[in-house]
Amino acid sequence: MAKAQVQRMSRLMVKTLRDDPADAEVLSHKLLVRAGYVRRTAAGIWSWLPLGKKVLANVERVVREEMDAIGAQEVTLPALLPKEPYEATGRWTEYGAELFRLNDRKGGDYLLGPTHEEIFTLLVKDQCTSYKDLPVILYQIQSKYRDEARPRAGILRGREFLMKDSYSFDLEDEGLAHSYALHRAAYQKIFQRLGLDHRICAATAGAMGGSKSEEFLAPAAAGEDTFADCPNCDYAANTEAVSFALAPVDATGVAALEEIPTPDTPTIETLAAHLNVQASETLKNLLVKVDGEIVAVGVPGDREVDMDKVEAHFAPAAVELVTAEDFEGRDDLVRGYVGPQGLEKVQYIADPRVAPGTAWITGANKTGVHAKNVVAGRDFEVDAYVDVVVVQEGDPCPKCGTGLKLDRAIEIGHIFQLGRKYADAFQLDVLGQNGKPVRVTMGSYGIGVSRAVAALAEQHADDKGLVWPEEIAPADVHVVAAGKALQTELALEVSELLAEAGVRVLVDDRPGISPGVKFTDSELIGVPKILVAGRRSGDRVLELKDRRTGEREELSVEEAVARLTGTVA
Amino acid sequence: MAKAQVQRMSRLMVKTLRDDPADAEVLSHKLLVRAGYVRRTAAGIWSWLPLGKKVLANVERVVREEMDAIGAQEVTLPALLPKEPYEATGRWTEYGAELFRLNDRKGGDYLLGPTHEEIFTLLVKDQCTSYKDLPVILYQIQSKYRDEARPRAGILRGREFLMKDSYSFDLEDEGLAHSYALHRAAYQKIFQRLGLDHRICAATAGAMGGSKSEEFLAPAAAGEDTFADCPNCDYAANTEAVSFALAPVDATGVAALEEIPTPDTPTIETLAAHLNVQASETLKNLLVKVDGEIVAVGVPGDREVDMDKVEAHFAPAAVELVTAEDFEGRDDLVRGYVGPQGLEKVQYIADPRVAPGTAWITGANKTGVHAKNVVAGRDFEVDAYVDVVVVQEGDPCPKCGTGLKLDRAIEIGHIFQLGRKYADAFQLDVLGQNGKPVRVTMGSYGIGVSRAVAALAEQHADDKGLVWPEEIAPADVHVVAAGKALQTELALEVSELLAEAGVRVLVDDRPGISPGVKFTDSELIGVPKILVAGRRSGDRVLELKDRRTGEREELSVEEAVARLTGTVA
Repeated sequence: MAKAQVQRMSRLMVKTLRDDPADAEVLSHKLLVRAGYVRRTAAGIWSWLPLGKKVLANVERVVREEMDAIGAQEVTLPALLPKEPYEATGRWTEYGAELFRLNDRKGGDYLLGPTHEEIFTLLVKDQCTSYKDLPVILYQIQSKYRDEARPRAGILRGREFLMKDSYSFDLEDEGLAHSYALHRAAYQKIFQRLGLDHRICAATAGAMGGSKSEEFLAPAAAGEDTFADCPNCDYAANTEAVSFALAPVDATGVAALEEIPTPDTPTIETLAAHLNVQASETLKNLLVKVDGEIVAVGVPGDREVDMDKVEAHFAPAAVELVTAEDFEGRDDLVRGYVGPQGLEKVQYIADPRVAPGTAWITGANKTGVHAKNVVAGRDFEVDAYVDVVVVQEGDPCPKCGTGLKLDRAIEIGHIFQLGRKYADAFQLDVLGQNGKPVRVTMGSYGIGVSRAVAALAEQHADDKGLVWPEEIAPADVHVVAAGKALQTELALEVSELLAEAGVRVLVDDRPGISPGVKFTDSELIGVPKILVAGRRSGDRVLELKDRRTGEREELSVEEAVARLTGTVA
Repeated sequence: MAKAQVQRMSRLMVKTLRDDPADAEVLSHKLLVRAGYVRRTAAGIWSWLPLGKKVLANVERVVREEMDAIGAQEVTLPALLPKEPYEATGRWTEYGAELFRLNDRKGGDYLLGPTHEEIFTLLVKDQCTSYKDLPVILYQIQSKYRDEARPRAGILRGREFLMKDSYSFDLEDEGLAHSYALHRAAYQKIFQRLGLDHRICAATAGAMGGSKSEEFLAPAAAGEDTFADCPNCDYAANTEAVSFALAPVDATGVAALEEIPTPDTPTIETLAAHLNVQASETLKNLLVKVDGEIVAVGVPGDREVDMDKVEAHFAPAAVELVTAEDFEGRDDLVRGYVGPQGLEKVQYIADPRVAPGTAWITGANKTGVHAKNVVAGRDFEVDAYVDVVVVQEGDPCPKCGTGLKLDRAIEIGHIFQLGRKYADAFQLDVLGQNGKPVRVTMGSYGIGVSRAVAALAEQHADDKGLVWPEEIAPADVHVVAAGKALQTELALEVSELLAEAGVRVLVDDRPGISPGVKFTDSELIGVPKILVAGRRSGDRVLELKDRRTGEREELSVEEAVARLTGTVA
């Protein structure tokens, strides 16, 4: 094994802080700043200090090795990109304020790449002309730029961040499915090697377009995503992607629709109280305007409408809430007493929970009056079933019906089957085996490399500081010289022996620092093994401590070296 | 040795071109594009394809190893930077149109880092508070941005490019000199390992400020720099930095100043022809305006004034040439007949060649009249001696006097002793051993990592293509399967054997490509060793060719593996 480096803290630029930074809200932000891994340069823009850079480089190395292992080819495309390709796909405008735009000295429009689908599509169009040139998977590890409205949480959501993005190009759907499966397996290996607890969750494709998409989520309190996890089966999904199965009900025995006077009950709460029923027995009808046309959205009275889902359904049309003016001159719309059975002129979409055959209490389209036994499919028609409610803890698993658990998580990876969206935009064809052009199908795949460091810090910490997994720790062992000359000599001697054997060593040889401060720092910095040259240094005996378990044992120099180099158990 | 990768060309994205790209002017641009290493994405903005990325990564690795070896600590600072620190040093405006500037969504001013002196100074101000924290050397390898007016020559002068920049922080001048010497030695090692022929040249500090500065120049026809090289001693300097020693002459025997009628001789050419003397015997007096005040610049009549040097001397004052209006009302300034002996009201600077005691023919400050025997120091005073002439081939070496050679070169590295310019701008002090604050002194040091790839391509190529030095080649050996199934099998078998032994292999296993095309491609791509599975594959005999020398020999599989793994001579 090659000789490893000994990093002497007396020479290393690492300044630990006793207190949490004032602007830090989440654990990883606090710890990575306090332990001297990163420093803020501007809002959402961070500098990686020597220890942090080592961790980041370790994550990069693992990602690179596993991408190479699936035959992906590394390239580096620019971060400064011309406007035209992004205009061709519409993303120049769709990205909105999140895109950093700039002009060059001649007034030309440029952007800082948030993700590179367009540029890779054009590159492959230039490089690959025949079916023989495919499939191909290309990747890069590169700084990406997104002008977040509220950069927060340290490196968890920065405006400049390091990302591995890759792109697959295939002739057929089966090829895309294979490239997707290769990435899915590689991502599992990567996160396993990094020591990141993660779940693979069904996701919505969002602005990226395309069909199938899954997210790799790392459960953590600081996460900005919420995912639903089934405690019984393997189902997991971003709450935005949880679907509720449409299950029609037999309504044969339900009595006929009956109007009932319900004065002063314009809300679900007043209605349920007045009739002494559960809100879940009532049907709530939300009115929205879609490109100016009124549309009604029906959900059970106890559920909230997720406006993001409504917007996603009607995109790219604009969705607004109705205002008082919208009711003027509309005798069919009685504010507070709307029922779907009276909405002939209005499109009606409903949550799958409002399945055919289900009976509801809802507005009678007359002020102060509701109706009961209003049956979907009998008394009113649903124009389209769309998942529009906010998912709640306990909602049934779409796969096995068990009540779902909701958890917070950090998105550390995302894989997409894009299909032909970008290939269509740029006419990316290759000559097929039969001599005819074949439109290429694509996938795109991302890992947040810098964000993974934050996710690791979230998952691997205790009240004393960071506790890095071995593969990505900034060193294998942190040797601490308690302070006296003899102790420092022994610490440096054993450090050299370890490094000779290929062990990466961080040694605290700082003069004039108390042993207590050094121990506190070693726990904050979080190298997996801590080897102390302390009281028994005269006997050439050191104390080995496991950072995670706190277990300690005394070892001779030879035993310590053998243990840490793994040559002796 | 760890198993190396076999890159199969049948799966690698590498498309070679028969013809030079239409816009390519220089050799490296032509070859790197034709061999499939890089592709243009926008003006001065390039993509690194799989083979090119490997070469770039090899250069990066060498740079990183040698920086680590001098104890430099790797960090990564952002490329997107806030305006304020660059405003504090004046570089926000000084950089002019070369700086990419942009706004974020809140209208805040940002820039894309061209170089990071300001940000490193602030980082060290935050991290280092005591003399114990110094010295420190920090480096990063990162994309840099400069909006070049005329991006040309491929990756030799791009607008986004990869650079290694490092910064040293010391307490005292001797410390800075030591950090500078460490870098100088590391750079020599780096360029030697890369296989880059280079010269270390004295340089001017330019916009960076500071005192001592040297450039590492790689001689190449495509270079934009001109340097003077002494064929006799070790002197080498950028022509901008060549100095001419001031050597006073004894003027005892020179006759008195004498005016001579010279009608219609307002130029050096007409004067020399009229008097039948060499232009070098005459003194040319150029008038310029410095912040509006007229200044005369005296140089021998056969030399050109380098306006860049005049501007550098008077910076930050603005320097302009005089116009006809400037002579109005100035009886002391007779256009075409100016002589320093009549310029009492004008500052007079002269080239060191106009040394005290030298005698000249020059204007007599009367129309149609010149003067001869005009002796510097006797008949006129020089207010300041400044090197202002354009250096010419054959000018004497400032060190040994031998005639200098002029050559074109590419700047691949630049090292600066900045001194306290940036530390002063940000009050970067640390507490000294005596308890008093000490102002820190800095150096900054750059290597053009992507440019080094272009410089290598310029220096290592022949009429067939690239000829990479071993350390940075994209593979150690290029195995070519001539075409038949048997040949491809043998090529893949030997490739695996080589990779097992740690040899990096590129194997041309592309089906349906003629042997001639494969041989041409292998020479264009330029891997140092080419191993052909051709006619004698049935006997398990291959042909090994040295790309540089063209030497060929036939070897058995076992001999080839032994030779290429270096286990047998």
